Amino acid sequence: MASPDPHPQAEDRPRCAVLGTLDVLRDMWTLAILRCVFYGIRRYTTIQRELGIATNVLADRLDLLVDQGILERVLYQDRPPRYEYHPTPKGADLVPAIVALRSWGRQHLEFAEPLEPLIHRGCGGEVSTLIHCAECGEQIGWEQIESGPAIPNR
Amino acid sequence: MASPDPHPQAEDRPRCAVLGTLDVLRDMWTLAILRCVFYGIRRYTTIQRELGIATNVLADRLDLLVDQGILERVLYQDRPPRYEYHPTPKGADLVPAIVALRSWGRQHLEFAEPLEPLIHRGCGGEVSTLIHCAECGEQIGWEQIESGPAIPNR
Repeated sequence: MASPDPHPQAEDRPRCAVLGTLDVLRDMWTLAILRCVFYGIRRYTTIQRELGIATNVLADRLDLLVDQGILERVLYQDRPPRYEYHPTPKGADLVPAIVALRSWGRQHLEFAEPLEPLIHRGCGGEVSTLIHCAECGEQIGWEQIESGPAIPNR
Repeated sequence: MASPDPHPQAEDRPRCAVLGTLDVLRDMWTLAILRCVFYGIRRYTTIQRELGIATNVLADRLDLLVDQGILERVLYQDRPPRYEYHPTPKGADLVPAIVALRSWGRQHLEFAEPLEPLIHRGCGGEVSTLIHCAECGEQIGWEQIESGPAIPNR
């Protein structure tokens, strides 16, 4: 697999931040791998077992995430060398997306067993993602997002 | 394509809200289609043009999103019948995930041209997604999310 180019030529750069991000992440496996890594499942074998993902796909997506600077390899064993995958700060910036996908699942899916909430360390409250205005601090719904050049005719 | 079953048997139900959501959404095309719909691009032909997606894939993913109750068809022309795809409330609950993916792209990708911010209608502030504690209201980073049964050994 050719590594994705983190600095594409101007004509190949995305015009939309959503589509650009989806293009980098490529498919749902990368988000599933990030979910594992954020939950502390960080070794090739444990991620493979957790997801039931084909080994060649897992190796490919881990390479992609490392090449993109989203994960980094951390040696945990010398002989033979074995690595864990840790999120970089760039990777940690994807946590709101993972938590938002999780919140949607909690609201709308039926589960095999009751889900544990994600808990705010110390305070004990439940963690969720919300859309927020940086100016007034208000929590907002999507219908309060103004049309702009990228939002032609909602 | 067999329609996904919105009420799977107990043994087939997901154990994780992130993986369950990724399973429902199947691939990045559904998120790309939802991005279009949220931005007001709601007709088969305009979505197809916007994404450059193969027509059979687009038809399949629109069916999936309608079957899952995430989008609904709204007739906009009688002869021949033509439909727009509008988000349901269940679909609108995915907006935080789309905005979170967008925020990541804005922070970490290079673009062909400067991006317009998403604006809070009325206030004019910029919209973003954040992780938030429902109990204390604090904006929190992922390292403040407590380990739970689903977070074995971060």
